[in-house]
Amino acid sequence: MVLKMAHVTLFKAQSFSRLDQSVMHLLCLVLATLSILAQSPKVLAEHPNLVITKAQVPLMREALESEGRFKDAYTSIKAQVDAAMQSAVDVPIPKDGGGGYTHERHKKNYQLMLDAAKIYQLSGDVVYANFVRDILIEYAHLYPTLDVHPARKVKSQNPGKLFWQSLNEAVWLVHTIQAYDLIYNALETDERKAIEQNLLRPVALFLSEGQPSTFDKVHNHGTWATAGVGMAGYVLDEPEWVEKALLGLDKSGKGGFLRQLDELFSPQGYYNEGPYYQRYALMPFVTFASAIENNEPEREIFSYRDNILLKAIDTTIQLSYNGLFYPINDAIKSKGIDTIELVHGVTVAYGLTQDPEYLDIARQQAQIILSGDGLKVAQALDMRLEQAYTFDSVAFGDGSDGKQGALVIMRSDIQGPQAVLFKPAAQGLGHGHFDKLTWQFYDKGAEIVSDYGAARFLNVEAKFGGRYLPENESYAKQTVAHNTVVVDEISHFNGDVDIANQNAPKLNFFQSNEHGSVASAEIDTAYEDILLQRTIALIDLKELNQSIVLDIFDVSSDSARQFDLPLHYHGQIVDTSFELSAYTDQLSPLGENNGYQHLWLKASASPEQALARVTWLHDNGRFYSQTSLINDEEQFLFTQIGANDPNFNLRNENGFIRRVSDAKRHRYISVLEPHGEYNPSKEYTLDAQSSLESIETQQIETINLYEIHIANMRYLIAINTEEGIDADATKSFSYKGKSFNLIGHLGVFLIDSSN
Amino acid sequence: MVLKMAHVTLFKAQSFSRLDQSVMHLLCLVLATLSILAQSPKVLAEHPNLVITKAQVPLMREALESEGRFKDAYTSIKAQVDAAMQSAVDVPIPKDGGGGYTHERHKKNYQLMLDAAKIYQLSGDVVYANFVRDILIEYAHLYPTLDVHPARKVKSQNPGKLFWQSLNEAVWLVHTIQAYDLIYNALETDERKAIEQNLLRPVALFLSEGQPSTFDKVHNHGTWATAGVGMAGYVLDEPEWVEKALLGLDKSGKGGFLRQLDELFSPQGYYNEGPYYQRYALMPFVTFASAIENNEPEREIFSYRDNILLKAIDTTIQLSYNGLFYPINDAIKSKGIDTIELVHGVTVAYGLTQDPEYLDIARQQAQIILSGDGLKVAQALDMRLEQAYTFDSVAFGDGSDGKQGALVIMRSDIQGPQAVLFKPAAQGLGHGHFDKLTWQFYDKGAEIVSDYGAARFLNVEAKFGGRYLPENESYAKQTVAHNTVVVDEISHFNGDVDIANQNAPKLNFFQSNEHGSVASAEIDTAYEDILLQRTIALIDLKELNQSIVLDIFDVSSDSARQFDLPLHYHGQIVDTSFELSAYTDQLSPLGENNGYQHLWLKASASPEQALARVTWLHDNGRFYSQTSLINDEEQFLFTQIGANDPNFNLRNENGFIRRVSDAKRHRYISVLEPHGEYNPSKEYTLDAQSSLESIETQQIETINLYEIHIANMRYLIAINTEEGIDADATKSFSYKGKSFNLIGHLGVFLIDSSN
Repeated sequence: MVLKMAHVTLFKAQSFSRLDQSVMHLLCLVLATLSILAQSPKVLAEHPNLVITKAQVPLMREALESEGRFKDAYTSIKAQVDAAMQSAVDVPIPKDGGGGYTHERHKKNYQLMLDAAKIYQLSGDVVYANFVRDILIEYAHLYPTLDVHPARKVKSQNPGKLFWQSLNEAVWLVHTIQAYDLIYNALETDERKAIEQNLLRPVALFLSEGQPSTFDKVHNHGTWATAGVGMAGYVLDEPEWVEKALLGLDKSGKGGFLRQLDELFSPQGYYNEGPYYQRYALMPFVTFASAIENNEPEREIFSYRDNILLKAIDTTIQLSYNGLFYPINDAIKSKGIDTIELVHGVTVAYGLTQDPEYLDIARQQAQIILSGDGLKVAQALDMRLEQAYTFDSVAFGDGSDGKQGALVIMRSDIQGPQAVLFKPAAQGLGHGHFDKLTWQFYDKGAEIVSDYGAARFLNVEAKFGGRYLPENESYAKQTVAHNTVVVDEISHFNGDVDIANQNAPKLNFFQSNEHGSVASAEIDTAYEDILLQRTIALIDLKELNQSIVLDIFDVSSDSARQFDLPLHYHGQIVDTSFELSAYTDQLSPLGENNGYQHLWLKASASPEQALARVTWLHDNGRFYSQTSLINDEEQFLFTQIGANDPNFNLRNENGFIRRVSDAKRHRYISVLEPHGEYNPSKEYTLDAQSSLESIETQQIETINLYEIHIANMRYLIAINTEEGIDADATKSFSYKGKSFNLIGHLGVFLIDSSN
Repeated sequence: MVLKMAHVTLFKAQSFSRLDQSVMHLLCLVLATLSILAQSPKVLAEHPNLVITKAQVPLMREALESEGRFKDAYTSIKAQVDAAMQSAVDVPIPKDGGGGYTHERHKKNYQLMLDAAKIYQLSGDVVYANFVRDILIEYAHLYPTLDVHPARKVKSQNPGKLFWQSLNEAVWLVHTIQAYDLIYNALETDERKAIEQNLLRPVALFLSEGQPSTFDKVHNHGTWATAGVGMAGYVLDEPEWVEKALLGLDKSGKGGFLRQLDELFSPQGYYNEGPYYQRYALMPFVTFASAIENNEPEREIFSYRDNILLKAIDTTIQLSYNGLFYPINDAIKSKGIDTIELVHGVTVAYGLTQDPEYLDIARQQAQIILSGDGLKVAQALDMRLEQAYTFDSVAFGDGSDGKQGALVIMRSDIQGPQAVLFKPAAQGLGHGHFDKLTWQFYDKGAEIVSDYGAARFLNVEAKFGGRYLPENESYAKQTVAHNTVVVDEISHFNGDVDIANQNAPKLNFFQSNEHGSVASAEIDTAYEDILLQRTIALIDLKELNQSIVLDIFDVSSDSARQFDLPLHYHGQIVDTSFELSAYTDQLSPLGENNGYQHLWLKASASPEQALARVTWLHDNGRFYSQTSLINDEEQFLFTQIGANDPNFNLRNENGFIRRVSDAKRHRYISVLEPHGEYNPSKEYTLDAQSSLESIETQQIETINLYEIHIANMRYLIAINTEEGIDADATKSFSYKGKSFNLIGHLGVFLIDSSN
């Protein structure tokens, strides 16, 4: 959905939409800083007052007296805590790295402390407070004895003491300070003193003054650190810590939470690393912001930067299809909107806006947070107040200024929910893939034109310790693993992440109108002296009740090169319009480097027609035909992932590559057409064959025309490539003797329905 | 569920359980024959009186006055009929074979006539009767002009006139005679005369006297023919036709419907070709039996052969897991309990028994038949009377005497619904696969140890016209495509279906008790001079809340041979306990013939330990480890389907083969262990590693002992292989100084839970 103005006015945010955005951010920062200097933070002595406030507790307790989702959630978490309380508390001496026993145990402990502390507040039963207290006291005994963690990584990250990296230590503090705040009133003064002096203060200092490079870093690791330290500042009555958390150790605003809010999201709330890491990044932002709002509402933190946090939450939802996040960059593909970080995000978003569309997502998440906002969500769901969440077609500008390329999502509902993802986005740091201008297609709940995601079996020890597999570098990140052009079998930026981070594509235009959506982008830095330009449109053919995807990819080079355009699909080949030469009794890898060494070459073909069609069938029961206007210029190479994979680390997925050899320029033109139904259960098959008969192209000034003859209809698709025009700018042209008026960038005209 | 005695008494069936079954069948047949000779069939002049009776119509009409499933079904079918009535009726001159236009059109016509005729009865609106009448009149004009179908298959089957094979013509008659019966009262006498004389009588005669070889055949094609002709006998007042339908053209009982009931199902109601064809075969049986019951209730047709039809319906349900049929033999894997044939079957079964467990299946089918029984189902579901259907562990004896081997289903619920299929069954005619003693495993809703099913894209023209693909013969039917022993890379019976049909395995024993289920079987005719013996047990380890499958396969030969035991699995390899030599840069097929030519050899290994373990991860989030006690004797070959498959006709599934070369005998011993959970969405992984530490075996007289050390427990599994013992026969033995009492065939003893 598009954030409604109703939300924005809720936060009394000033509208800077006419100002240059970077100026606006600077202004925001200055204003925020001034407000802090003008008034020392008012730290309340009241407990609890971070995510859960004292005032909310009676309401939550009251809700437990009647049946409903909130009581269900309470009962379930209480049962888990009760079960855990049967065992002795274990606060082991830190020894293991990620995945090892002491690591996992300390992670469990902070979650358990927070859960038990909530149960204390809700039940009023001091046994839960005592349980948390006992664990905290054990930590208070242990912590002063610790040096930095023995399993620390020397080069890559700051170490923790309880954990091998300080990131985990910050997460520990974010949870533990909330638990402490929740049981504060149940503690004796000496207990508080021991816990604060020996544990919480040292941890907060270790994570701030003790590691300035991380604390001041404008990076997700910095967010966890500032969130932990800032929340500790509220609870331990250290306003100075809060100021440092917000503005950096030197309080200049060059680092700190506000700067992170300025830099880490685009103006629309898109996070540079992609949705998989966006949902992870969300957690400390949402948590700390809630604590700021409850302690210092005058900061209007949720209005900051034109409601950037709410936008970030909303964008995370938008970046999903059928409940799963788009798996660009390093992403585990089964991660979706029910991830706990987004449960917190949606809970806070609903608390702020009372927008019933968030309830639709909350219903799908089926998890209730034990907090004041969680209570609101639970009660609204009990009353069935949810309304269908609206997924939009959006170009999410990338980078803090929103101008480092974009991640484009196009949607259609004409054949049920469909989506195109088009990625002229920035690299997205170390987890980014070398896949400039790649795309994906989703239909009938499934990924059809696919992205490999990350090569990783999370936490599976036998698979490289559960970390990113070597094949993540050697295959999943490489350009050929994606659906975009590879030149001379070399990945974009030659696989150099530093150069990649400095060079984003340019989004030339994006528009969504009654005909569908279109976006065009280009990049001339992925390869030296080569320009890559791609235009993708998801178009509704209303008379046929179906959509098609039009894909135009122009490559131009100063010298003759080899261009490969892969298409990775899910499904099984049903038919090709041309003859295949299959390698039936021996397979070899397609190449030697940059991911090519992982592709078996299963068949090749050199179609000698104008149109070359490949049809496959997905398990979802629909057929997909990709028809390319090749004019005898493209060779087709059919591949399967799995070569040079001695440990079966890769999934054996299929694809085909359109190859043009020894060319200075080439235009790839293709149409993807979802069609028909395969229903072996009911024993019928409909429209197993493509109904696309021809594609003709023509250019008239800035207008590119594509005449598509499909299912006895002739459509003229017109795309005005002129940049910067208004959405309703009208351009007239004539084609085959008829006159047309094109409004904006995209027009679809039915020019003949008879044959 | 087990058919309850309550059902049986409903039908006043005599209990022959103490008599030899073949004697019983003969007696049944004689009794039935005598009863027919003693009384001429009482053909009622009342219409309708086939599946729907005149008495049911007012009840159905009344039901349409209130909301509910029955009215919903009526509304939906009426809307379809209304839509179809907008177009002109097309009764084309027969031209095309299966899948072609005239073929599909005539199929649509009979369904449409039947639906419209039902709507006539339910709505009372004569426009629907007239619509059916008009189509029938067109057919009555066309039919006398027809010779046998131009696209007939010369060799394989009798031709029809409207259709290329008479099978379709019989299906046409089964539908059309019902439609005629339903609109009979709306017709003028001359209309009846024209339709009967020019169409229905000629078709019935063509299908009986006109093709004695099919009509008298004890085969599913014969069932359709006798059902059509017999039902026509009732409607057209031709008692002689009914008798011929029941007893064969010569009325001797050597052919005909009763003989088919005797021969085509085993005593437990298992159909020789397997569940995929069982559900198809069910349709004419259930339809004609309903017509017999309504016209001649004194025949007690549903009690015939100890309620064989009800058993056949019930067994069809039992032969499913998670809604899908077990895909043995030629089977499309997405076929399941919602297939229309079983909807009719369950509707009739509920009508007969009012057993609320059938409502559970009906609810999952979510389709209501417009009939008297359909009304009962709809109303019972509206009242939520359903009770969970009980899936049992059963050995379904194969063949008409139940002694041609068996299809064994074992179930466990300790980790959620799990099933083992073990197949010491007969060949099952032309659609049978050469897979004696193969097995499969199902868990968490999914197929884990898999069967390829049929190589076919039903009705997809581009895939070999939608027929069985050539790869169905060259791969799917071959032994190596299954999970059973292949000797010298040659399929069972050398792939000769005639020999295979004559030689079934022998089920030595089967038992299901509190410890789990066990079955043992053997065959010495699959290969000359070779005995194959397999024992499979699905065992609950109650203390660990998990099940395991124990699999013992003995091969003994007069001369030294090569033994291969494949395991086809769904999932991705996570780990092996031994080193793999992977073919990373070149793949070749594993062999040249009998399916081996379709397997790429991806890796091989020669483990030098006592135990060899392969662990894989399924998309269902669970890990599976197969651990084999190999004692350095077995080579492991890892394969993927797809070699010599130039048109991408095969699915690229994975497997591994345990190979023993140059041996006279070998015992394959393995344990399959489902374990742990991979949950990347919630970011946790549990028990990714097998907890099986050792397997020891020992034999004491007829008792085979397997000591399993798993998850710090030591279990002793005892299997008494003595045939013919009672389920509660007790055998004492001592093992490692302790005494044990084994009751029946299977015992599981926890002998040490400390280490």
